[in-house]
Amino acid sequence: MRTHRERLPDVPSAELPSEVPTLHATPSGRRSEVVSYSDDRRTRGLRALQEITGQSGADVVGTLREIAPDLADWVVDFSYGDVMARPGLDRRTRQLATIAALTALGNAAPQLAVHIRGALNVGCRPAEIIETIMQMAVFAGFPAAINALVVAREALVQK
Amino acid sequence: MRTHRERLPDVPSAELPSEVPTLHATPSGRRSEVVSYSDDRRTRGLRALQEITGQSGADVVGTLREIAPDLADWVVDFSYGDVMARPGLDRRTRQLATIAALTALGNAAPQLAVHIRGALNVGCRPAEIIETIMQMAVFAGFPAAINALVVAREALVQK
Amino acid sequence: MRTHRERLPDVPSAELPSEVPTLHATPSGRRSEVVSYSDDRRTRGLRALQEITGQSGADVVGTLREIAPDLADWVVDFSYGDVMARPGLDRRTRQLATIAALTALGNAAPQLAVHIRGALNVGCRPAEIIETIMQMAVFAGFPAAINALVVAREALVQK
Amino acid sequence: MRTHRERLPDVPSAELPSEVPTLHATPSGRRSEVVSYSDDRRTRGLRALQEITGQSGADVVGTLREIAPDLADWVVDFSYGDVMARPGLDRRTRQLATIAALTALGNAAPQLAVHIRGALNVGCRPAEIIETIMQMAVFAGFPAAINALVVAREALVQK
Amino acid sequence: MRTHRERLPDVPSAELPSEVPTLHATPSGRRSEVVSYSDDRRTRGLRALQEITGQSGADVVGTLREIAPDLADWVVDFSYGDVMARPGLDRRTRQLATIAALTALGNAAPQLAVHIRGALNVGCRPAEIIETIMQMAVFAGFPAAINALVVAREALVQK
Amino acid sequence: MRTHRERLPDVPSAELPSEVPTLHATPSGRRSEVVSYSDDRRTRGLRALQEITGQSGADVVGTLREIAPDLADWVVDFSYGDVMARPGLDRRTRQLATIAALTALGNAAPQLAVHIRGALNVGCRPAEIIETIMQMAVFAGFPAAINALVVAREALVQK
Repeated sequence: MRTHRERLPDVPSAELPSEVPTLHATPSGRRSEVVSYSDDRRTRGLRALQEITGQSGADVVGTLREIAPDLADWVVDFSYGDVMARPGLDRRTRQLATIAALTALGNAAPQLAVHIRGALNVGCRPAEIIETIMQMAVFAGFPAAINALVVAREALVQK
Repeated sequence: MRTHRERLPDVPSAELPSEVPTLHATPSGRRSEVVSYSDDRRTRGLRALQEITGQSGADVVGTLREIAPDLADWVVDFSYGDVMARPGLDRRTRQLATIAALTALGNAAPQLAVHIRGALNVGCRPAEIIETIMQMAVFAGFPAAINALVVAREALVQK
Repeated sequence: MRTHRERLPDVPSAELPSEVPTLHATPSGRRSEVVSYSDDRRTRGLRALQEITGQSGADVVGTLREIAPDLADWVVDFSYGDVMARPGLDRRTRQLATIAALTALGNAAPQLAVHIRGALNVGCRPAEIIETIMQMAVFAGFPAAINALVVAREALVQK
Repeated sequence: MRTHRERLPDVPSAELPSEVPTLHATPSGRRSEVVSYSDDRRTRGLRALQEITGQSGADVVGTLREIAPDLADWVVDFSYGDVMARPGLDRRTRQLATIAALTALGNAAPQLAVHIRGALNVGCRPAEIIETIMQMAVFAGFPAAINALVVAREALVQK
Repeated sequence: MRTHRERLPDVPSAELPSEVPTLHATPSGRRSEVVSYSDDRRTRGLRALQEITGQSGADVVGTLREIAPDLADWVVDFSYGDVMARPGLDRRTRQLATIAALTALGNAAPQLAVHIRGALNVGCRPAEIIETIMQMAVFAGFPAAINALVVAREALVQK
Repeated sequence: MRTHRERLPDVPSAELPSEVPTLHATPSGRRSEVVSYSDDRRTRGLRALQEITGQSGADVVGTLREIAPDLADWVVDFSYGDVMARPGLDRRTRQLATIAALTALGNAAPQLAVHIRGALNVGCRPAEIIETIMQMAVFAGFPAAINALVVAREALVQK
């Protein structure tokens, strides 16, 4: 397969290092937020990605970089740098909202696993994660909730 | 249209009063939680329904009672009495998780409006509600987020 | 808007009459099935469309004919002639299965209304229709079931 | 992973036996319905679960009990005791409506397999199950129907 | 309702002018692409938004700016500046792919209308738009295709 | 499992040969379109199926023939003969529209793989396929786009 690299020529390409830096993460994957006022989207995105998803997010971005490098950049710059890094909602609530949405959609098991582990990384208790998924039985039906609980059992054990 | 009332004979029918009691709600719709240990599912459900959705939830239940009275009971007893009343997650997080899921599903505008007002009732700030919806652009796409914001604009103004 | 008529030249165009024939429907919209062995897809489809959906199906096909005439043909020939006319399942079960699916999908209110009236046309009782929708609370969540009940209330009253 | 058991103190906990009783099921998995007038939700739910899903439903509930015991109770008490056990629709129609919905949703393969076997348990013929799934090509598209047929092939062979 | 403006302090706020410039669009809404190499995301996004959606896109962004100004920026900078402006696919194909997706999702009628008009703006013929929607009957079912055709009839007439 | 063959007696059964003919496909899988004016739906469908999906489509149809032979016919006659073979849109655009829709739906990975290979068969470049999927991050969210890219990586490598 041919690689796919058709960057717009005017994108100021603040290159993503091929190795996503580990940023001195503690063993639990949690760390204090030290986003500097001078951080740009890329730095902020990499930091949020690391703080929330730890190694599993870096793995996803690495896989995407092989097939769609610009989408890998969007994950870092837009999803994490513009959206997930925002101060308007605490990280725990953001993760539980994400878990609720992915449970309801019911077609994104890999992302659900990443964000369940991400919820643990930012300090959610397993019981809160499971409680959020259980609540989805009301809004998206029992199959959606049950399938997400199966993903959660796996993701919480791996952690 | 014929009414539809085929209760199982063994359902101990703790009758729902035709008028859902207002439970001394404050003008803002918020009240302290005083769920007694002796409350049964119905009492607990009515209380949670009132605390979270105020009049709009009572209106929905009233409408349902005309066409599918047992489903109206399920909303009270199961959705609110068994699920939403649970202590495992604070009410604000439950509402934001609900808003995230309904935004992502994208086909439940009336429920989204009820739960946006419900989020205000339990103490969420408008900015938190909007922030939760904005985050869904990442997980469910921009159309889902934009359509939910249009619902939110209406629901937040009405409040 | 330009009309859109790019038939394949080799489609043997058994023309659909501009007026969908009423086929001596009884006042209740029900009639005995007399599909002849010599009926082709078009005849079989028109008959099934009429028996199941009555005027509302003819209206939909008429509207489609203005904007996408070949899709209007597909509705008659494929959806009704090939699929809905099949003997492998009785008409009542087919309609309830359709109502279940459209309730669960949650984004097809106009079709849900047509098929609720269609269910009445083929002999389903209103209570069975409502029961089918109520069951979807388990499989697709309460918002899907509630929104479908609102459609049903309207469709059952109009009938 | 920590277990998750935060029952509301006022839930009268009619304990679910750790072994779901087999209720003298016949080899074909079918049995006459003998729901007593005095059965409560739990008893009625366990009975319906057993009659419809046989061992596969018990396995799902057992798995859920490990990670989210209260949701396991909801499956028994609400999904089966309140909803699926209702007399308003015969069991065969309920199963085919469920299969239609799960086929259309397209993201619940494990539940679809359970309910296809459940349809056989309550007396549906394989041809009726396949016919229901085929019909979904019209309402939810060919991919949804095809993927459900692949699940059905597996589930019908296992039986 | 309180306005919602919680920008990250380090976002270099290339202010979006309150009036989206019209960029000398021709009466047909089409214009040659003259994206300069020095354009940044904002300029590129505004240009693509104007070229594709004309006034309807500007209206949507204007509405969003009132309730969620940062999401309005994301629409311009990310959706149009990063994604839709990319050279890897011609504009006509991008619009038809968008129409296919929104038809299949079935819960984004306002966006579908905007992108149908957008398809005309970038040179798609009405017949191509309708053909794309018709094809979705195969992949997402007839209700999705029919509902999108109803949107298209309206959007193509308004044009 | 019992086989399922309940053809309507009046279907003129232009039998599908058990072996789908290869039609002198070139190694690349592409061939000039030579649909004769006298072709009927079946011939036209088989030809389009072969030209677009090559062996993978024939395999799917073969699998379906075992469990639901009439649906296998519908795939050939309706999906390919009536819809995909139409001249109103070029094959490359049809495939990219299909990929966009299946990416957005997010629950049809097997069909997405077939149609990604189909896109190559009709002359799409891998970069165009990936570009189409990337665009779906805007309209259906990042999880949908990422999961489709993982399917694409596999499908493009296999080719």
